[in-house]
Amino acid sequence: MPNKLNLLKQFRIVLCETSHPGNIGSVARAMKTMGFSDLYLVNPKDFPSKHAEALACGAEDILKKATRVSTLEGALKNINHVIGFTARKRELTQPHKNVRDLSKQLINEASNNKIAIIFGNETNGLSNLELQHCQSLGFIDANSRYSSLNLAHAVQIVCHEIRMVSEFPIKNKILNQTTKKYVSHDLQNGFYKHLEKILDEIGFLKKIQADRLMMRLRLLFNRTQMEKEEVNILRGILSEIQKKIK
Amino acid sequence: MPNKLNLLKQFRIVLCETSHPGNIGSVARAMKTMGFSDLYLVNPKDFPSKHAEALACGAEDILKKATRVSTLEGALKNINHVIGFTARKRELTQPHKNVRDLSKQLINEASNNKIAIIFGNETNGLSNLELQHCQSLGFIDANSRYSSLNLAHAVQIVCHEIRMVSEFPIKNKILNQTTKKYVSHDLQNGFYKHLEKILDEIGFLKKIQADRLMMRLRLLFNRTQMEKEEVNILRGILSEIQKKIK
Repeated sequence: MPNKLNLLKQFRIVLCETSHPGNIGSVARAMKTMGFSDLYLVNPKDFPSKHAEALACGAEDILKKATRVSTLEGALKNINHVIGFTARKRELTQPHKNVRDLSKQLINEASNNKIAIIFGNETNGLSNLELQHCQSLGFIDANSRYSSLNLAHAVQIVCHEIRMVSEFPIKNKILNQTTKKYVSHDLQNGFYKHLEKILDEIGFLKKIQADRLMMRLRLLFNRTQMEKEEVNILRGILSEIQKKIK
Repeated sequence: MPNKLNLLKQFRIVLCETSHPGNIGSVARAMKTMGFSDLYLVNPKDFPSKHAEALACGAEDILKKATRVSTLEGALKNINHVIGFTARKRELTQPHKNVRDLSKQLINEASNNKIAIIFGNETNGLSNLELQHCQSLGFIDANSRYSSLNLAHAVQIVCHEIRMVSEFPIKNKILNQTTKKYVSHDLQNGFYKHLEKILDEIGFLKKIQADRLMMRLRLLFNRTQMEKEEVNILRGILSEIQKKIK
């Protein structure tokens, strides 16, 4: 089983008939932030383009490596699974899955397959001719009254969803490594007693139910899981108040 | 329990010191596709703007309703939970959660709380001054060698993640849970200012780096997500101290 990074290398993003070169640049940036690098462009209207480079914004390497082809078939060489993103199900018969469920399936498959994810033209989306190359269809759950996602935003969501699934095992390992060191119970308790003493000295505890109040304050500070230095700051403040009220 | 759509209405997106009006337009579009509509702009460099409208592309209503304010505090009125998105953890002590885990928590809280999600300037992200208003921090898992997400892309991912949780409440086991109502940002900020005043009066702030200390104390109490009654208790204590030291 390849590791996480190799799994993401199994994915190709394919943009079909893109009208605006700026969107191609933004897609390159979106891909790179999520660890993807394989980009194919089917008949882009205007590419290469300064506008695409400007919006790539540090991801120009993805643009330079991008492969320009004249047919969708040309972009699908050596690909084992083709997924088309489309909001509308139309009368197509492929499974149409939410990007989250689809991502789990794809990461599973990626150890053994090269996967292409294709996106259509900004105005019309994928045509039926393009969709016929897809084994599966994906959609991004959106506002039913306004579902018009920008192309690069859609790619960003899809890449993020796939990355999140690929990250999962590694995340667990990280959890075991770094944990903050919290203050000891002794020190925390010392702070509570100091606080109680001062509240008593200023007469605050006499006015209300003292035990209930102290319990409330303890729970408040317990929730925050303090570090040692923070307890020291608070006790410094308490000491200063004590000097002033004597 | 409000339904799904009402839950999304509990969220506000706050953009701080945005440089490029096009990004504001793209954010409006990203929000609307995911069902969000409450947008606040803190000191945008260039707004209103034709460029913003062009990129909003059908989401001009979000731009028109957007509230422009001159301070971050102004954008946080009636907000109970402030979340800042930042890639770097820095030396801050708030919890720093992946957007996916965070979204589950936020949808849970949204039944009872108004939530603001704040994003910083395109070049520098959120400043430490801005971050001190946050109870929690979020991040988007990205390529460690190139994590520079476009602002609108980041908003798109965050809104999609929250929407996904709100769409499938049963799957995410959040149905019918009762959540605590947190104190509003106004009241919490009032407590910090009261605390600062007293620390100044007792001479504590003169001894050390005052700004750094206040930041530290804000973060400590931010973490604990106080209820209104708790803030009232703390302010009661502060008032009592004030009487004694005069």
